[in-house]
Amino acid sequence: MVLSAISTPGDNILLPDRGFPLYSTICCRNGVERRLYPIDLDNDGLIDLVQLEAKIDKKTKAILINNPSNPTGIVFPKWHLEAILRIAYKYKLAIIADEIYGDLTFNNMKFYPLATLSPKVPIICCAGISKQYLVPGWRLGWIILHNRYNALCEIKSGIISLAQQIMGPSSLIQGALPDILHNVPNLFFENIRNLLQTNSDMIFSRLIRVPGLKPLRPSGAMYMMVKFDPEMYGNESDFVEGLIREESLYTFSGSLFNAPNWLRLLLTFPEETTNEACDRIEMFCQRSRRIYNWHK
Amino acid sequence: MVLSAISTPGDNILLPDRGFPLYSTICCRNGVERRLYPIDLDNDGLIDLVQLEAKIDKKTKAILINNPSNPTGIVFPKWHLEAILRIAYKYKLAIIADEIYGDLTFNNMKFYPLATLSPKVPIICCAGISKQYLVPGWRLGWIILHNRYNALCEIKSGIISLAQQIMGPSSLIQGALPDILHNVPNLFFENIRNLLQTNSDMIFSRLIRVPGLKPLRPSGAMYMMVKFDPEMYGNESDFVEGLIREESLYTFSGSLFNAPNWLRLLLTFPEETTNEACDRIEMFCQRSRRIYNWHK
Repeated sequence: MVLSAISTPGDNILLPDRGFPLYSTICCRNGVERRLYPIDLDNDGLIDLVQLEAKIDKKTKAILINNPSNPTGIVFPKWHLEAILRIAYKYKLAIIADEIYGDLTFNNMKFYPLATLSPKVPIICCAGISKQYLVPGWRLGWIILHNRYNALCEIKSGIISLAQQIMGPSSLIQGALPDILHNVPNLFFENIRNLLQTNSDMIFSRLIRVPGLKPLRPSGAMYMMVKFDPEMYGNESDFVEGLIREESLYTFSGSLFNAPNWLRLLLTFPEETTNEACDRIEMFCQRSRRIYNWHK
Repeated sequence: MVLSAISTPGDNILLPDRGFPLYSTICCRNGVERRLYPIDLDNDGLIDLVQLEAKIDKKTKAILINNPSNPTGIVFPKWHLEAILRIAYKYKLAIIADEIYGDLTFNNMKFYPLATLSPKVPIICCAGISKQYLVPGWRLGWIILHNRYNALCEIKSGIISLAQQIMGPSSLIQGALPDILHNVPNLFFENIRNLLQTNSDMIFSRLIRVPGLKPLRPSGAMYMMVKFDPEMYGNESDFVEGLIREESLYTFSGSLFNAPNWLRLLLTFPEETTNEACDRIEMFCQRSRRIYNWHK
C-alpha cells in the first residue's frame, strides 16, 4: 500500500538486494522502477552505502530499508542506520522502514527503530503482529507516518484512499489487539528469542564444518542464509530439490531473493527438529559431494 | 480482485446503476470503462434489459450482476435472471455474480444463484460470510469460478497472481469457517430474516403514509430505499444532514449510489429502535415541510 501511494509511473524506489521479492512485484505492477542497492552477503550483510547513494536521482521517491532483514537475518547497528539517515537527509528523501521483525533480535543485538534516530527524515514505518507474535496468518499490521517537514501529507491521503479500496483486516483481530499488545508476557518473547539464538548457534556451528557450506550468522528476524559451493554440489535447483526429495527438508531457494547459490533456513522449529534437520543436511551433502565428484 | 483480473485498460464492464460504488472506483483505477446499465427504482427495481443489451460492444468483458441488490434490496425473480443469462449467452460474455447477500431474502422471495440457471455462461460468483452471518468486519469471502467453455482460465491465473500480492484473509477466521458453515443453526438465519421482514413491513407501512416519501419495498439484502420529494423537503444534503443534526438519525445519501433524492435505510436494528427511527423521520418530515413551505 505504501509503495503504491508513494510513487507514480516513471518514479523509482531504492530496494534492498537481497530482499523480500514482493517489493519488486508491487513496483513492477505500478510501473515504478525498482532500483536495487546491494547488500553484501559475503561480508557482514550491511548495505553498500556508496552504491546506495550513487543510485539516487531526481526520480527517486524513497529508500526502502528492511531491518531486521528478510532473508539475511542481519540487524543493522546504530551507526549504520545513522549513515543511511544522513544520505536520506542530504537528498531530502523519505524512508520506508519495513520493521516487521522489530524486536525479534538475539546475539545481544539491539533493534533501533529508524524513526528514533537522527538526522530526522520523513519515515513511513510498516510493522504488525505477524512476526513478533508468531501469527503471520492473522494479517494485522499498521503504518506509522512520521510526517516530518510535512513531506508525507499527500502520501497519507493516498494511503487512506487505498485502504478504502482494499478493505481492512479482520475486526475480530483488531478488537483483540489492545490485549495482545498489553497482556502478552515478556516471557513469551524471551522464549522466542532463546529459541532463535539456540537454533542459530546450533545450525551455524554444525554447517560451518560442512565442506562447501558457508552460513551467515544472523542476529535478528527468523532466518539464516547459507551459501553452498556449486563446484561441489551442482546448481541451486538440484540442491534445493534434492533436499526435498531425499530428506523431506524444505528450504527456500536463494534465487527467490536474488541470491543464487544460497539457501534460506528457518530458525523457528523446536530444537530437536532443527537438530535433525542439520543431520539431514550433513547426510545429503556427504552423498551429493560423492555423486557430483564421481560425475565430474 | 475479479474486476482487476478480468479486464485490461480500454475494456469496459457493465455495472448496475444504481449499485455499490466500489465497482466504479476499481474500474476507474484500472483504466477500465464502467458502463452503467439502468435499474429502475421508480418501478420494480429490475434491470432494463433492452438498455443492458444496447450497452454491449466488442470491448465488453463482463456483466456484473448484484443480486440481491445493494442498495435496492430487490431480489431478481428467476425469469429475470434467465433473461440476463440469455443476453450473456448471445454475446458470449462472462457474468460476475456478486451474490454476497445470497440467501438473505424475505417476503417469500427465493434467491436463485445465477450459476444454477440456464443457459449456461461462464460465471464468477463472489460471496462470503460477511452479510448472511452478520460479520462484515471479519473480511472472509470467496470466489467460485464456473469455468464453462474454459473461458475463465486466464482470469483464474490472474486472480491467483493478485491473491499473492494482496495477501489473504486472517487464517484464524479461515480456520473457523468449516464450523461456521456447518454448525450455525437454521434458527439464526430465520431470526435474521424475521427481523428484516418485520422492520421492512413496519418502515414501509409507516413511511408510505408520509407526504412526499415513497419507499421501495425490498425482499432481500438489508436495505430499503426511500424516495423523497425535493419540492417538499429541499435538496438531498439538507435532508440527510438535517436527519443527523436534528434527530441523530444516520441514513445513506442516495447520491452515493447515483440515486439522488433517495435515502438508503438499514433494516438490521432491533424492532424498538426501528420503530423510534420511524417516529423521528415522521417528526423531522413534518417540521421540514412546514419550514420549507414557509420559505417558498
